[in-house]
Amino acid sequence: MCELLGMECNVPTDIVFSFSGLALRGGLRGPHSDGWGLALYEGKAARVFLEPRAAHDSPLARFVRENPIKTLLAVAHVRRRTRGEIALENTHPFVRELWGRTFVFAHNGTVKGVRRLDLGRFRPVGSTDSEHAFCALMAGLERRFRAYPRDVEELWRAVAELGAKIGGKGTFNFLLADGRHLFARCATKLCHIIRKAPFGQAHLADDELSVDFAAVTTPRDRVVIVATQPLTRNETWTIGEPGMLWVFSRGRLRATLRA
Amino acid sequence: MCELLGMECNVPTDIVFSFSGLALRGGLRGPHSDGWGLALYEGKAARVFLEPRAAHDSPLARFVRENPIKTLLAVAHVRRRTRGEIALENTHPFVRELWGRTFVFAHNGTVKGVRRLDLGRFRPVGSTDSEHAFCALMAGLERRFRAYPRDVEELWRAVAELGAKIGGKGTFNFLLADGRHLFARCATKLCHIIRKAPFGQAHLADDELSVDFAAVTTPRDRVVIVATQPLTRNETWTIGEPGMLWVFSRGRLRATLRA
Repeated sequence: MCELLGMECNVPTDIVFSFSGLALRGGLRGPHSDGWGLALYEGKAARVFLEPRAAHDSPLARFVRENPIKTLLAVAHVRRRTRGEIALENTHPFVRELWGRTFVFAHNGTVKGVRRLDLGRFRPVGSTDSEHAFCALMAGLERRFRAYPRDVEELWRAVAELGAKIGGKGTFNFLLADGRHLFARCATKLCHIIRKAPFGQAHLADDELSVDFAAVTTPRDRVVIVATQPLTRNETWTIGEPGMLWVFSRGRLRATLRA
Repeated sequence: MCELLGMECNVPTDIVFSFSGLALRGGLRGPHSDGWGLALYEGKAARVFLEPRAAHDSPLARFVRENPIKTLLAVAHVRRRTRGEIALENTHPFVRELWGRTFVFAHNGTVKGVRRLDLGRFRPVGSTDSEHAFCALMAGLERRFRAYPRDVEELWRAVAELGAKIGGKGTFNFLLADGRHLFARCATKLCHIIRKAPFGQAHLADDELSVDFAAVTTPRDRVVIVATQPLTRNETWTIGEPGMLWVFSRGRLRATLRA
């Protein structure tokens, strides 16, 4: 199994604290030593750092922690291989362009029957069920909408429906980002927290690391963190229910949908 | 104007020496201070490092130089803005998936009339003429071939023809990589060198930096470097002619085509 981490905020925020927690699980404290990836949006584009090796001893992961890049929207993943060999092309998050926007996707679980999915014009570069499922999701969205939908709630519903359809036979926990939203689907295991004023201290569950968010935020800041498991031990995380899709934008939960 | 750098080899090679030469032109010795990017293939996928700031004082560019990643195929670019604001989404190289392969593209020059180009199902994320031209190139390839052509020479000819068509009204020097080939089109300014045994010393044109390739290679190694201008001052570079496409694979020049 893999672990997912997403961040969505109303002010540019660095993901270092949460990514440090995730990186610890990447081979040191957890069994997720087969790769890691981090996508950080800047406007409509995203920087994507990928490595098919454990995050905890990766120089690039250390660089990312030591040179924090602020962003409104980020998706990260640490991988323990289930399908597909250890290779860059099988490392999450995956990226595709649709409607002139950059879409980023990371998955936890196993989707069955991916060879039978309709992928439209999208083709996986690697051999994971995850990238197949992402291609099917992109193809499903492209079939429904010729351009980015003006009524974004139509997009939210489409993601929920396609998620249920594609993940019907398997475990389809995922994070999907389009530069405006973070979509978080819970099949078996996903949780979130929205940090806002009054900010307090947080302690990483897997480490001695703490951060005093009050010192690095303003009262208007809202930061959503989504993760496979709670990353901190002194905060209250909202646990997802199977089949549910959360939609976040500007640091708020916009919708909780079930297909 | 921007500067291009490509590398294509028969054994995994690090691009640090040449990238150092390019990075020096990224804001310190040259006027190309509006961004830089570097794509390094590993199998069918590519790591892509992008920054919308000068390469010479970029911590990420320094990281890439200090932590060399060996690759068979790389495309780099330093940017001086002509069209499109300074932003991550306008930073080369650009990436798209076609036929389940990762295509990487970087451009030097200005292509005119891009709004009238047929982009098929590809859409630019940013606002550069370069990304428009790349989308038109991908769309043209997709129209001609339903999958990666078995006869690769058909692909070579298609890239040459599409390059001539898209770049007809403007300056279309570009590097295009598909994981197997490096395509290098010269409209006005491009050169290459193939380093092979007996290897000697090379001195960067813009710096005191030298490297003794004999010490870091085997007699079988072949390394192609393509650049806007010669990067070294004691080697003989082959200068491109307008309208020409070079096709490189496994460290060899496979074809020189004119559309």
